Amino acid sequence: MNAVNIGLLGLGTVGQGTATILARNAEEITRRAGVPIRVAGAVVRDVAKAEAWTAAAGLSFPITTDGDALINDPDIQIVCELAGGEEPAHRWTRAALEAGKHVVTANKALIATHGNELLALARDKRVSLRFEPAVAGGIPVIKALSEGLAANRIEWLAGIINGTGNFILSEMASRGRDFADVLAEAQSLGYAEADPTFDVEGIDAAHKLAILGAIAFDTPIDFDSLCIEGISGITGVDVAFAEQLGYRIKHLGVARRREHGVELRVHPALIPMKRLLANVDGVMNAVVIHGDAVGSTLHYGAGAGAEATGSAVVADLVDLARGGSEPISLPSTVPDKRAALEPGDFSCPFYLRLEVTDQPGVMAAVAAIFGTLEISIEAILQKEPAAHEDTTVPLILLTRTVTEARVRDAITQLEALEDIVSPVVLLRVETLD
Amino acid sequence: MNAVNIGLLGLGTVGQGTATILARNAEEITRRAGVPIRVAGAVVRDVAKAEAWTAAAGLSFPITTDGDALINDPDIQIVCELAGGEEPAHRWTRAALEAGKHVVTANKALIATHGNELLALARDKRVSLRFEPAVAGGIPVIKALSEGLAANRIEWLAGIINGTGNFILSEMASRGRDFADVLAEAQSLGYAEADPTFDVEGIDAAHKLAILGAIAFDTPIDFDSLCIEGISGITGVDVAFAEQLGYRIKHLGVARRREHGVELRVHPALIPMKRLLANVDGVMNAVVIHGDAVGSTLHYGAGAGAEATGSAVVADLVDLARGGSEPISLPSTVPDKRAALEPGDFSCPFYLRLEVTDQPGVMAAVAAIFGTLEISIEAILQKEPAAHEDTTVPLILLTRTVTEARVRDAITQLEALEDIVSPVVLLRVETLD
Repeated sequence: MNAVNIGLLGLGTVGQGTATILARNAEEITRRAGVPIRVAGAVVRDVAKAEAWTAAAGLSFPITTDGDALINDPDIQIVCELAGGEEPAHRWTRAALEAGKHVVTANKALIATHGNELLALARDKRVSLRFEPAVAGGIPVIKALSEGLAANRIEWLAGIINGTGNFILSEMASRGRDFADVLAEAQSLGYAEADPTFDVEGIDAAHKLAILGAIAFDTPIDFDSLCIEGISGITGVDVAFAEQLGYRIKHLGVARRREHGVELRVHPALIPMKRLLANVDGVMNAVVIHGDAVGSTLHYGAGAGAEATGSAVVADLVDLARGGSEPISLPSTVPDKRAALEPGDFSCPFYLRLEVTDQPGVMAAVAAIFGTLEISIEAILQKEPAAHEDTTVPLILLTRTVTEARVRDAITQLEALEDIVSPVVLLRVETLD
Repeated sequence: MNAVNIGLLGLGTVGQGTATILARNAEEITRRAGVPIRVAGAVVRDVAKAEAWTAAAGLSFPITTDGDALINDPDIQIVCELAGGEEPAHRWTRAALEAGKHVVTANKALIATHGNELLALARDKRVSLRFEPAVAGGIPVIKALSEGLAANRIEWLAGIINGTGNFILSEMASRGRDFADVLAEAQSLGYAEADPTFDVEGIDAAHKLAILGAIAFDTPIDFDSLCIEGISGITGVDVAFAEQLGYRIKHLGVARRREHGVELRVHPALIPMKRLLANVDGVMNAVVIHGDAVGSTLHYGAGAGAEATGSAVVADLVDLARGGSEPISLPSTVPDKRAALEPGDFSCPFYLRLEVTDQPGVMAAVAAIFGTLEISIEAILQKEPAAHEDTTVPLILLTRTVTEARVRDAITQLEALEDIVSPVVLLRVETLD
């Protein structure tokens, strides 16, 4: 039996996880793939460091710094792009596809921003470009969307797809801690980068959502149309009020099919506590996919880590080795009816926190604004002043479903009231039904 | 583009769901399969009734009572066995494979009891026998196990794989109701059959677990080795005590790899409330799969219903139409080291409820028995008598991990004590780690 030879571009966390799994589970993987899958080479920046790692791990394969040589090695049939970042990842991926090699990549930024071009190139060259490891780590969610739920018209999906952000929000909820405090801890635990922008401002989740949305709705990948909001503005106060109303605040990626387009958005949202997704805590990831035939399914697991992500790399390798999988292919143009929607067109229930002076008549003025704009109120929570000397009180409103444009009109009018003393806090509610 | 023609053996709930989805989502399914999938015929017992249904649904395909004619129709490439039951399902499935047709079946009893023979026949005939719809309805869990998590050595899996049983236990927990009362309601809602044995005694779950276990551990399907216990003995009292200790009682199917064999068991179990699986309520299904690389993943969705199960039928059809999927193949002999374990060898923590006379010295006698057998106690809950006239009190013990054989020794000794006035209630605890 011939082996399938693979080349690893990058031997960092995911590359090491992949090589480790292929060695440790060689027996199972060979049986499932029908053929052994073996690492025929790896490309790194620091050969000595990489060789120290392979020696310690009991592995042995050639290690070089020459990406082009590995890509063009006629013995290598599949190239795994596990280097991450922009370049040389992009150039290498193109070169590998041009050379007629299948490519598996864990690089969500690459697929989110260059996926259309790379998938078209793969199609031209009659090879596969696969990216299960780029989304939600070890959870086989790309496979679920494109194969397991292939019978369905996908109506929407919503996911917790950034472990760092979810760790921070989980800690804020369970321990009543503040954002900055938890972020510092996450950084010291290695869950968050020194520059946490990518994670906490939603860029990483947006990369993954752009990919999920394209596969779910069979559109080109359209990263630029995403509405992206981070969680750095979430306060412990709002986490606590949400809890009192029966909700958890999570950083969600949501893709939803609407009559006249597709919504793609990453933002914090209140989720009803009774939903499983509201109970996904710590660094774990989960994606709910709602299909017209199957209803809601949830797919949960580790969203990052050497072996969890390596598990997804190897799953793609096994599919390719079996020779069975059709290349993933997306259309190159967006039909008009599927154009991305403007944020103002999104509609959902909203959570608003107003800081109001503790005066009679304030509630009437607030209610008049909502009444005039025909925004229905689902729940109101008015708290006593926190201390005797406080002259303002928080007023929490939960609306029924309304467009974001209309709720923003209301906020403009609210903030013009003299009794509303600070900017209104606005959060979306995702009921997941 | 040629169509793939399929024949439906049976046009009941799942057959109707399958035909409906294929018609409604024809555009999406054709795109994903690369070719249209069309129903070329159906076999039913009552043609007039079936034709009334197709007419009302706006569908049109030939309907007959002749299974063999459909199976041998040279225009039909894939046969869907959706008749259920023993015969003619078994004979039809054999005949279809013999005739060189791929078969998709939703028949868990058939696969659990005849799967080895049928898979071997499929292998001989170089066709595929697929059964995603036989396990957990619309959740693509067979695909997750055999493809999405192909990198992993599966360590264990645990699932809520019978919706009827889960509905009953969820209602008992959330409303403090009794088993018989909820069962009667489930029957009136159509969630439970007039004869509920298959569901509440665990046979249905055992069929599904036998299939999951074989795929997870790459062994032959071994239904006869399963240890099966139902939920008809679960009382509201134990549900309430479990809750006080931080657990929910669920009817689980558990498959676990041990050093010297494989455990396969279906029984009620206490699950820590913080686990997502403990929060899967109503008729929903969920399976946790623990792989050595990926850790724990959870797969959740509707476990039954026309379109949810139809979604899984169509997913298998799309895979077959793509022409890509390798047939699922299982070994025909069990290596010794993977022989099924005897129930006495299973080990886990246990919940025991003793009814004891309200006398000094009882606790000491109980503790002495556990001490002598070296069974560690994790928690004790002793309740006041329920009413003044009661002379017995419930005593709840939660053990640390111990073999079932040893805990049964303890029970024999406990029941010999004069102060223990009724049989000891014994339930397993699944910590899912």
